[in-house]
Amino acid sequence: MTYSIQIKVMPLKELLDPQGKAVLGGLANLGLASIKDVRIGKHITLEVEAGSAEEARAKAEEASKKLLANPVMEFYEIELVN
Amino acid sequence: MTYSIQIKVMPLKELLDPQGKAVLGGLANLGLASIKDVRIGKHITLEVEAGSAEEARAKAEEASKKLLANPVMEFYEIELVN
Repeated sequence: MTYSIQIKVMPLKELLDPQGKAVLGGLANLGLASIKDVRIGKHITLEVEAGSAEEARAKAEEASKKLLANPVMEFYEIELVN
Repeated sequence: MTYSIQIKVMPLKELLDPQGKAVLGGLANLGLASIKDVRIGKHITLEVEAGSAEEARAKAEEASKKLLANPVMEFYEIELVN
């Protein structure tokens, strides 16, 4: 069966996010000064062929650890959609 | 009150996603051939100062339309966290 998995990869809360800061400045220039903080990360959707939901989630964990997220700078959250 | 908003910005389903294709190849090389498709977009979190949840969501809509997403290539989904 094919499972849809969503992975959110965000910069660690302790770290500055220069891309987010740049967007925050852009929003203020557009008159959206009520937006007080912006953080930007990656949103990844995977289609995983697996025998069970647990197996699909394990594959997504492995992919996140090995390739998708850099644990020095980022954390990730995995969510199974179906 | 401050509202936390999450915005997912993904490449339109009709379009190729070269970054996703590159990651898919990388995963296959790492032995994760059971992952059949990868699409990569942006995940944005906003902290919005607003009088109501509706107002916060409207600000996020405006930010998405004006700056965060390019409607020619991307779609977005807004989710209010609190």
